Amino acid sequence: MNQLEKYEDSIGYSFRDRSLLVRALTHRSAGAPHNERLEFLGDAVLELVISGFLFDRFGNVDEGDLSRMRSTLVRETTLAEIAHSFSLGDYLNMGPGEQRSGGFRRDSILADAVEATIGAIYLDTGEQLETVRDLLGKWFSERLKTIRPGIGQKDPKTRLQEYLQAREFHVPVYAVVDVSGQQNSQVFKVSCSVEPLSQIVFGTGTSKRRAEQDAAEHVLEILRKSNGNRK
Amino acid sequence: MNQLEKYEDSIGYSFRDRSLLVRALTHRSAGAPHNERLEFLGDAVLELVISGFLFDRFGNVDEGDLSRMRSTLVRETTLAEIAHSFSLGDYLNMGPGEQRSGGFRRDSILADAVEATIGAIYLDTGEQLETVRDLLGKWFSERLKTIRPGIGQKDPKTRLQEYLQAREFHVPVYAVVDVSGQQNSQVFKVSCSVEPLSQIVFGTGTSKRRAEQDAAEHVLEILRKSNGNRK
Repeated sequence: MNQLEKYEDSIGYSFRDRSLLVRALTHRSAGAPHNERLEFLGDAVLELVISGFLFDRFGNVDEGDLSRMRSTLVRETTLAEIAHSFSLGDYLNMGPGEQRSGGFRRDSILADAVEATIGAIYLDTGEQLETVRDLLGKWFSERLKTIRPGIGQKDPKTRLQEYLQAREFHVPVYAVVDVSGQQNSQVFKVSCSVEPLSQIVFGTGTSKRRAEQDAAEHVLEILRKSNGNRK
Repeated sequence: MNQLEKYEDSIGYSFRDRSLLVRALTHRSAGAPHNERLEFLGDAVLELVISGFLFDRFGNVDEGDLSRMRSTLVRETTLAEIAHSFSLGDYLNMGPGEQRSGGFRRDSILADAVEATIGAIYLDTGEQLETVRDLLGKWFSERLKTIRPGIGQKDPKTRLQEYLQAREFHVPVYAVVDVSGQQNSQVFKVSCSVEPLSQIVFGTGTSKRRAEQDAAEHVLEILRKSNGNRK
């Protein structure tokens, strides 16, 4: 089996149009045609198929819990785990720079390639959902079995802490810098500083905890973007 | 024609299962079963179908421009316009409180009901995309004809200003409250105060403009949430 066949074997799908698969596995650092357009499409396919699974499976769960479960299932770390289960990093086409800097191990790049793969399968099957639905049912089967409303979705502070620990940085430092507003409509402002960012990031909320979660969310966003820019 | 038939007539689809349509048109203020779960599903259907339209139509446009065009097409104000073209407000089931407070005119409620309608059609057609694709092609035909990469997507400051003006509030007030960081990695912190919010909201960015956009985005988010809570 060649490389592409090995990857097809591990994802459980053989492409009619191999050029779609090649593109899905091509990071922009390797030049065009790369996988970013397929990622755009695949991201939306993934969202809908997972939404459908959750909608059908949890008939009495409200929209808020469905959304939280969906973000747990489609977020970068989950997709990177799935990428690892396919050894996706072994099949990625990247520029020499990314190769050296270990881009094939970076969560964001792996997660993007999983979404691009989904987009490629969707196109290869004539923009129908059946095949993608079957495949994602397998890829996510364990997670779909175990996910429950109200659990599984980690809050921003937890995700930030895990992000930093995974990269051997210190834990974030939070501090209340301002409390304003009337007694029953107080607004807390919290600063959050983390090792990899030179800037201090702020969050606001109607409680100290909410303000910290808000700040953590912003930090995660900034870290995501700076990862993106490093592409 | 009864009310439901009139609505079916204006959206161009007749339901096999009318109870899905009734639910799609039932705001939570009217009690369960309401349309929030259908909205969760319909939102994802809409994202994918619009993504597919843009992907197919703009073969050489990069993922960033595709995303910007998609957010222009699926954002609340666009969906509210589509709702008005269906006179959706006339068919909404709402609690007496919402009726009196004019909820049937509120963009967020109208946009949610459009997404719920899309979710209902998707379920009514056996979770296939063909019918929804045809319908959305009609609903969005003018917008799909005129949208172009790099235009159409309004930035947060513009959207915030329009949001406030539409509700006859004063324009937002921005002020730089902090500049930190090294010369070539400066971080600006900007405050934004708007009439309908008691709190001052902050934004950060590597330029004054970016920080203002960030602050405006947060304000829009808070306003969206508080609209949600008022439901």
